[in-house]
Amino acid sequence: MEKVLRDPIHNHIYIQQQVILDLINTREFQRLRRIKQLGTTSYTFHGAEHSRFSHSVGVYEITRQICDLFERNYPSQKKDDGLWDDNERIVVLCAALLHDLGHGPYSHTFEHIFSTDHEQMTTDIITSPQTEVNQVLKKVGPNFPEKVASVIQKTYPDPQVVQMISSQIDADRMDYLLRDSYFTGTKYGNFDLTRILRVMRPYKEGITFDISGMHAVEDYIVSRFQMYQQVYFHPVSRSMEVILSHLLKRAKYLYTVNKLQLNGATDLLVPFLTGEYSLNDYLHLDDGVLNTCFAVWRDSGDEILSDLAHRFLDRHPLKSVRISPETRKYIPTLEKLVTQAGYSAEYYMDTNDSYDLPYDAYDPHSQNPRTQIELIQNDQSLVELSAISPLVNSITGKVSGDERLFFPREMLAANKQNDLFLPVYEAFDRYIHNDQVVAPE
Amino acid sequence: MEKVLRDPIHNHIYIQQQVILDLINTREFQRLRRIKQLGTTSYTFHGAEHSRFSHSVGVYEITRQICDLFERNYPSQKKDDGLWDDNERIVVLCAALLHDLGHGPYSHTFEHIFSTDHEQMTTDIITSPQTEVNQVLKKVGPNFPEKVASVIQKTYPDPQVVQMISSQIDADRMDYLLRDSYFTGTKYGNFDLTRILRVMRPYKEGITFDISGMHAVEDYIVSRFQMYQQVYFHPVSRSMEVILSHLLKRAKYLYTVNKLQLNGATDLLVPFLTGEYSLNDYLHLDDGVLNTCFAVWRDSGDEILSDLAHRFLDRHPLKSVRISPETRKYIPTLEKLVTQAGYSAEYYMDTNDSYDLPYDAYDPHSQNPRTQIELIQNDQSLVELSAISPLVNSITGKVSGDERLFFPREMLAANKQNDLFLPVYEAFDRYIHNDQVVAPE
Amino acid sequence: MEKVLRDPIHNHIYIQQQVILDLINTREFQRLRRIKQLGTTSYTFHGAEHSRFSHSVGVYEITRQICDLFERNYPSQKKDDGLWDDNERIVVLCAALLHDLGHGPYSHTFEHIFSTDHEQMTTDIITSPQTEVNQVLKKVGPNFPEKVASVIQKTYPDPQVVQMISSQIDADRMDYLLRDSYFTGTKYGNFDLTRILRVMRPYKEGITFDISGMHAVEDYIVSRFQMYQQVYFHPVSRSMEVILSHLLKRAKYLYTVNKLQLNGATDLLVPFLTGEYSLNDYLHLDDGVLNTCFAVWRDSGDEILSDLAHRFLDRHPLKSVRISPETRKYIPTLEKLVTQAGYSAEYYMDTNDSYDLPYDAYDPHSQNPRTQIELIQNDQSLVELSAISPLVNSITGKVSGDERLFFPREMLAANKQNDLFLPVYEAFDRYIHNDQVVAPE
Amino acid sequence: MEKVLRDPIHNHIYIQQQVILDLINTREFQRLRRIKQLGTTSYTFHGAEHSRFSHSVGVYEITRQICDLFERNYPSQKKDDGLWDDNERIVVLCAALLHDLGHGPYSHTFEHIFSTDHEQMTTDIITSPQTEVNQVLKKVGPNFPEKVASVIQKTYPDPQVVQMISSQIDADRMDYLLRDSYFTGTKYGNFDLTRILRVMRPYKEGITFDISGMHAVEDYIVSRFQMYQQVYFHPVSRSMEVILSHLLKRAKYLYTVNKLQLNGATDLLVPFLTGEYSLNDYLHLDDGVLNTCFAVWRDSGDEILSDLAHRFLDRHPLKSVRISPETRKYIPTLEKLVTQAGYSAEYYMDTNDSYDLPYDAYDPHSQNPRTQIELIQNDQSLVELSAISPLVNSITGKVSGDERLFFPREMLAANKQNDLFLPVYEAFDRYIHNDQVVAPE
Repeated sequence: MEKVLRDPIHNHIYIQQQVILDLINTREFQRLRRIKQLGTTSYTFHGAEHSRFSHSVGVYEITRQICDLFERNYPSQKKDDGLWDDNERIVVLCAALLHDLGHGPYSHTFEHIFSTDHEQMTTDIITSPQTEVNQVLKKVGPNFPEKVASVIQKTYPDPQVVQMISSQIDADRMDYLLRDSYFTGTKYGNFDLTRILRVMRPYKEGITFDISGMHAVEDYIVSRFQMYQQVYFHPVSRSMEVILSHLLKRAKYLYTVNKLQLNGATDLLVPFLTGEYSLNDYLHLDDGVLNTCFAVWRDSGDEILSDLAHRFLDRHPLKSVRISPETRKYIPTLEKLVTQAGYSAEYYMDTNDSYDLPYDAYDPHSQNPRTQIELIQNDQSLVELSAISPLVNSITGKVSGDERLFFPREMLAANKQNDLFLPVYEAFDRYIHNDQVVAPE
Repeated sequence: MEKVLRDPIHNHIYIQQQVILDLINTREFQRLRRIKQLGTTSYTFHGAEHSRFSHSVGVYEITRQICDLFERNYPSQKKDDGLWDDNERIVVLCAALLHDLGHGPYSHTFEHIFSTDHEQMTTDIITSPQTEVNQVLKKVGPNFPEKVASVIQKTYPDPQVVQMISSQIDADRMDYLLRDSYFTGTKYGNFDLTRILRVMRPYKEGITFDISGMHAVEDYIVSRFQMYQQVYFHPVSRSMEVILSHLLKRAKYLYTVNKLQLNGATDLLVPFLTGEYSLNDYLHLDDGVLNTCFAVWRDSGDEILSDLAHRFLDRHPLKSVRISPETRKYIPTLEKLVTQAGYSAEYYMDTNDSYDLPYDAYDPHSQNPRTQIELIQNDQSLVELSAISPLVNSITGKVSGDERLFFPREMLAANKQNDLFLPVYEAFDRYIHNDQVVAPE
Repeated sequence: MEKVLRDPIHNHIYIQQQVILDLINTREFQRLRRIKQLGTTSYTFHGAEHSRFSHSVGVYEITRQICDLFERNYPSQKKDDGLWDDNERIVVLCAALLHDLGHGPYSHTFEHIFSTDHEQMTTDIITSPQTEVNQVLKKVGPNFPEKVASVIQKTYPDPQVVQMISSQIDADRMDYLLRDSYFTGTKYGNFDLTRILRVMRPYKEGITFDISGMHAVEDYIVSRFQMYQQVYFHPVSRSMEVILSHLLKRAKYLYTVNKLQLNGATDLLVPFLTGEYSLNDYLHLDDGVLNTCFAVWRDSGDEILSDLAHRFLDRHPLKSVRISPETRKYIPTLEKLVTQAGYSAEYYMDTNDSYDLPYDAYDPHSQNPRTQIELIQNDQSLVELSAISPLVNSITGKVSGDERLFFPREMLAANKQNDLFLPVYEAFDRYIHNDQVVAPE
Repeated sequence: MEKVLRDPIHNHIYIQQQVILDLINTREFQRLRRIKQLGTTSYTFHGAEHSRFSHSVGVYEITRQICDLFERNYPSQKKDDGLWDDNERIVVLCAALLHDLGHGPYSHTFEHIFSTDHEQMTTDIITSPQTEVNQVLKKVGPNFPEKVASVIQKTYPDPQVVQMISSQIDADRMDYLLRDSYFTGTKYGNFDLTRILRVMRPYKEGITFDISGMHAVEDYIVSRFQMYQQVYFHPVSRSMEVILSHLLKRAKYLYTVNKLQLNGATDLLVPFLTGEYSLNDYLHLDDGVLNTCFAVWRDSGDEILSDLAHRFLDRHPLKSVRISPETRKYIPTLEKLVTQAGYSAEYYMDTNDSYDLPYDAYDPHSQNPRTQIELIQNDQSLVELSAISPLVNSITGKVSGDERLFFPREMLAANKQNDLFLPVYEAFDRYIHNDQVVAPE
């Protein structure tokens, strides 16, 4: 009973166990079809409209391929020989498929405003007896849901299983780089997956890579770095997130303070506005539900709510420029000017930093030490990636990204004449030069 | 002031006029981001989550490229010389961009149930003074909106302009074949666009193709045929459409007869349930609004409404088999069996035909005569495509597709034991063989 | 001991047996690196410079993938059950790798002039004790070379093994369509290999395809048809073949009649000019050897030899137009005009037909009956491809291609003035219209 | 009179001037079809069989696209305004097309042994009155050949013209990265050409890039670095070059000392063995001529010549390991062991370093200062690439590559028994560990 899904990244996705098919058919998993993988990024790259469903089956497929390769080339012969025990296949496949199950609409921003936690939600959906996912998993064994959840939480004892889906080079990251690259239409994320899979090897402490594949691994790290720089940190997408964040904040404020006259569409959101929501409430959310609220709010009598909803739905991003620790001191002045021009600085200005650590070697003193990428040499000794790749070394342990200041595009003086606020705009623009905040001349 | 959008199909989309940029920034055009290009097809091909926005800018881009080629190689020297008059560029670019502006969510099914008409809507949005699109177009000229609309309605006097976006080989079809092929991950729609553009030529009666490009044009027709067979007519997508259609029918029925206890999410749909809607009501609809209604209905007390909403949102397609004029006579019997098994035949059974005419030569006796594809020979005489391509000839003027009967998958007897209804299922299954309805043995 | 070769078509080629690696390392197989897969086609499509080596390892790889799929999904349980017996793997892999081993430089034309036979040569290289290939194969078993040769000759008893590399949809054809498409840079040959492999099935009489893959098989047939029309039959490549053929004919004539003053480069060719060659002589030939002869001949005192060598090496193709049974009668007149213009009609004019039968159903009355493509339905009955595909039916059993007349481009009168022969050219041109020979007005 | 060539990298190559078409049709340019772009690299990556012809037309096409973009967006208005003067188009297109015209077979190695110089040859072919290329160029103007040659020699006064084809990011490098990546089937060289072209800008001192395209330029530099590491420096290709070099050295020695009994194939090489060659002699060389010599030498009575010819033609590379300044001291000992095992150390051992400077900022103290890559900011000031890209900075000004020691694979002791020389092999192997020369334990 092999079934296949057609997939643009992996060509076909092979479903070979009933439990995987049953999981895909649950309502909790189908819900991922209605949540975009990249949230506001599709406002910048219009092709990036793919869902978390599509990414989830992709992570499953890469994991399946790794299991096949390990089973063919490195099958365990006896306990603890550091080779691959194919009895772990089913738990790692389920974990791969379900690892993003708890994501909600516009996850990052939503969580920030409503204090939800998608990782906790993933665990809850897997382990709550009321979900279809839990019922499917229980057919494998009474504790199987908890086992799957522990893989995702990285507490599962077998490091090969954990690292397959959570490490600095795992099935999750490999799928999203390839997929996001394909759907955005950029080429930066397009590393050589088959080569990396070919040099992957199980060992006692997890997963390592044959030294002959060093450049393929290096290319993956560089690709990841470039996708962050070019796609994930794009200022326009971040601007749309800033608007979204302010929009939800305004709604929350209006609901709490004013008991916002909610009309129906907003009902599904009320539990989050009040802070009292159940798992079932959470599972009713998706991008469409939020956008439907925004469509209603766009016609609201509250001017700020209405305008922010309009800016979000109809894509009118804020303008942004880089800001640095040295120039943060100008923010109060700039806020004052924005206020003079008639905008609420609270709702129309913000800063946002996008930082990522593209790769790091293991650091026991770090709060969050990472499993470093190691390569295995002819004599079976291991060497850490950045020790032999100058390219990787150049970005190891260094955060990359920038902090930006967002404000209404209307503040720019260019091409304006006979505008009442022109002097305000001109005052504002003196702080902006070469895409950054500067000391005024 | 050239701007670009990154696009996976055309790499970049070049925006070279302010009016085009302004049109893209209107709320009516941005709404197309929230409507999937292929509706229920993403239930079969999970990558096919791209929007009508993405297709619309693609059609614009192909049209822009055609204009560039025509302007470079075939610029009109004097009136009526059959060459390209670049003064037509702006009207054809606007028409290309806006040709799908009136589409709503799940267009085909929605129109069928609620008697809306997306072509009329496109015209209305363009010509109604209340829309942002209309205001942008009016800046070009007072009658410019009507000119653009007439291109889309094919009443514009210049046949080159009309055929660029509406013929058997136009920018619209070329973009959707390439785009749908890319996002579904199939390869059938992948013809050679640059070659076709290179052999395109303006002439007095419209657009023709140099004979040297015959095989590229042939390949496009064959690709189109194959995409219909393999993607657009896929039984599972059609099954999801059948469910959607019955779901909307049920809601309409409940509203009319029972005054369905509507909770809020459904408010935006009420004008369509009552049949009294405005253009503004229509512009509030998108996929998310409908899905939000379905999420609410899934919890409804009406068992049929709730079950159909569940089947649609959580992807539980009906089963289907081919049916023919000869075997249609068994439908009443099959309906009886379905009813015996406890299903409302009205809501759980249906037939659906998917037919397309992949290509046709011009036929003056046809109700809807098509502009045939003609190739220009060395001596400037024209020859019709199917006259010189046996492949195209084999599918010319012949409808392709099939009619299918849809019913609950539960009617299949296989793998069932100790089921009260097993004899009913077995009786039903005697009519099913090799994926079609047959005379029972 | 798995080794891989990097390949642009299959990404990696997996070598999993020592015998395969050893075969690749033989001098007879390495020689294929020096013979272009498509001969004169690279004069039309400059990317098509790939060698028979590259195609041969590609055919091996597809065959290996089929074996893997068959072994995984359809392993034989007992003798004659129609499933796949993996003991056949090694013989079919060797046959796949070696099937083109006997090809020489510009195979088709060379054979025509010197009466060599590449199929016989393949057998000879495999079975002659003097070759490295034979010695490698003998390590598997004393009769193993003959077994491998019999697979290539289609006399091997197991029809699955034979059809894997010789049928209307075999590893050979599938590789060359994809490979030639990739290197020419055309898109016509780009069908869906993984889908076809997925629906392939062994059965008692050979190989069949699941009915669900009908459209993928159809697409492959159409792709094949299009590659013939667009690439393999290209008039310019055929023109270069005509020149090559006349060049070799002239050399043979000069050698026989005049004892052509051969300088050294030609030594390796002498055995073929005299008609007395050994297998070892044949194995010394490659594209470079022939081209080196031509470079020497280009400086020869024989004007025809020298001019034809120049036209071939420096790419000055003859012009060509279509000719038909009705217009063949004008050839003598045209030859007379060519002669009047100063060309030897024997060496500067020719006709050449390129016909292919893109697909045929089995016909017991045919001289050369083909194994037809059959699809297996749900009830295990078989149906022939053209019976259910109108596209395939339209090209089934019909030869496609054309016959062309080749002559010096100098015969065209266009753009000539003050030319002594202008009246001759004009007389000639009256027979040419719309790329074909016609009755003069 | 626009003509096109089909190209796998650029899809189509557009020929828009008669002089370009005429240049392509010269015998000197057609000769490039018979010289592989990557020499011995096809022994490692069998797809890399593309010719210098294919690369040359590719460089032309990229240059043509740059001219189009510059003419459209940055046309010069008056002398010395730093914008693009389209009168330069013809000279830069010719230079782009012809920049590699002087390459011979296996260029690098051949030059090393026979002291030829492909850059000088390029100039000679362009400027010698006896060549077809010269005659075609002269039709443009009497000094036009010299103008074209001066662009290639970088002495042409217009820096935009020179940098288009010779700088750290020029049409030459951009084409070969994309092309070599495509034909090898690796993905490392696949940067975003259209994005880079879009951000290219002419300015007074040459060519610069808009700051918004920084990441695309960065990606190109990284791609280049990776192609060197992964493809151009591949140890097996370098090993084949070492064999080739020794083979030619042996032939030269035999000819000089012994008056090697040359049979005919070698005639074309004699002028180089004696050191007295003309331009015409040089133009008679190509890969096939050299390989034909090798095929004859393979049957020679001189054992070393014959064995090296066999190793080269039949691909039996030497083995190699890394060596460093610290371990070079072991070479004499290793040579002694190789000699003891019966090999001439002079012909069977060698070291070879492959170093490249992937990118460098301008350094006035360098022997060979490079034009650095500069990006233009909003305020029109320039910033050097490595100053803003940590990735590029990490590889700026640092040579990358390695030095390797080559020796007969037979020296490895593994899998040998009952071999007379086993103690010698074992002594040798003590110096080899983890792919490098080490101090023996």
